[in-house]
Amino acid sequence: MARNKHPEETVSLILDVAGRLFMEKGYEYTSIQDIIDNLGGLSKGAIYHHFRSKEDILLAVTDRMTEESNRMLEAIRDRQGLSGKEKLKAIFKESISRPVQEDMFSTAPSLGSNPRLLYSIFKETMMVAAPDYIQPIIEQGIADGSICAEHPKELAEVIILVANIWMNPMIFGDSVDEVFGKFMVFRQMMEGFGLDIVDDEIAERLRELAVIYQKNR
Amino acid sequence: MARNKHPEETVSLILDVAGRLFMEKGYEYTSIQDIIDNLGGLSKGAIYHHFRSKEDILLAVTDRMTEESNRMLEAIRDRQGLSGKEKLKAIFKESISRPVQEDMFSTAPSLGSNPRLLYSIFKETMMVAAPDYIQPIIEQGIADGSICAEHPKELAEVIILVANIWMNPMIFGDSVDEVFGKFMVFRQMMEGFGLDIVDDEIAERLRELAVIYQKNR
Repeated sequence: MARNKHPEETVSLILDVAGRLFMEKGYEYTSIQDIIDNLGGLSKGAIYHHFRSKEDILLAVTDRMTEESNRMLEAIRDRQGLSGKEKLKAIFKESISRPVQEDMFSTAPSLGSNPRLLYSIFKETMMVAAPDYIQPIIEQGIADGSICAEHPKELAEVIILVANIWMNPMIFGDSVDEVFGKFMVFRQMMEGFGLDIVDDEIAERLRELAVIYQKNR
Repeated sequence: MARNKHPEETVSLILDVAGRLFMEKGYEYTSIQDIIDNLGGLSKGAIYHHFRSKEDILLAVTDRMTEESNRMLEAIRDRQGLSGKEKLKAIFKESISRPVQEDMFSTAPSLGSNPRLLYSIFKETMMVAAPDYIQPIIEQGIADGSICAEHPKELAEVIILVANIWMNPMIFGDSVDEVFGKFMVFRQMMEGFGLDIVDDEIAERLRELAVIYQKNR
């Protein structure tokens, strides 16, 4: 591929290819050379022009997933005709339905050994996802009577911390039983908050995800 | 102070002094020179012989706190005559009673911007505290009938993740209302798991800690 005049397209292409390889081969087993080989002629220099290291590429791939996730959160937050609790349920349901989720569940689980990745996901979760999306939905739920909570900010934080970090297949590698166990403990935690949002259909999908995850390890 | 023949004593002294200064002045406002000035004659070279950077000293200070915390967890785990649930309550009560907790609550809150520290606490929490201390106690509780849980490993993880990371004053800086709000959401979460371990006495102490924390910011 010749170097083009649109660097954002080059970056996007690098992230497409790298993201796919990380999923297929696992992050640890993907080299910069593998990425180059799949870019159809882009030089090593062209990659290093945009990224300093493979880890930088990983962080950019993760950022792009986060942006996609935030667009979903924003759309549901601003949707008309749903109560706050219904919105929380919609978020959870959509999170586990997106194809990217299957990709994440089939990627190498050892990303939890990467401090920068953990920090990046952690910061995004606490500084953006919790205050900008989950908290306003909980506040709406309190106002419309579908959610009973005294501390919406803190409730938003703990829910999204557990969902985004602890249940994140990119951070923790677990057996199928452990993944399903996490979902069930999450379900119980949510019910303890009066949020019975994990119904049988969702539980079935969670079991599927746990199996997909196990199969690809 | 002359260099002594016992490097572990030198290290211990550096950690004592650095730990105290981090608490009093805040990590960001403590320089290596401040630490030297309080060491009574130890040279800069002697410090750099043991630590590469101020951040390394911080991680060592944190490690020492963790070791202390683990000794407490171990003692309670192995204590005779308590049910599993009583042990969980004892851990929570002792965690918020230790003087070091007041120190932690009065230290600079911006340590959450340090990826290595976050990772270190995170890893210790998930790889050591959860499986070695909390999980066996929950399993004992299931066996003695004081705790009802189907997934002890996952329950242990989510409890200690929320307690050690989200409620960690070294990671998050919050106002007094937010700190107390976190404690109350934690209480509700534990009750949702059938673990009513935060009684009024503990809640009162939590309010005290929240105020101490606020006072020192």
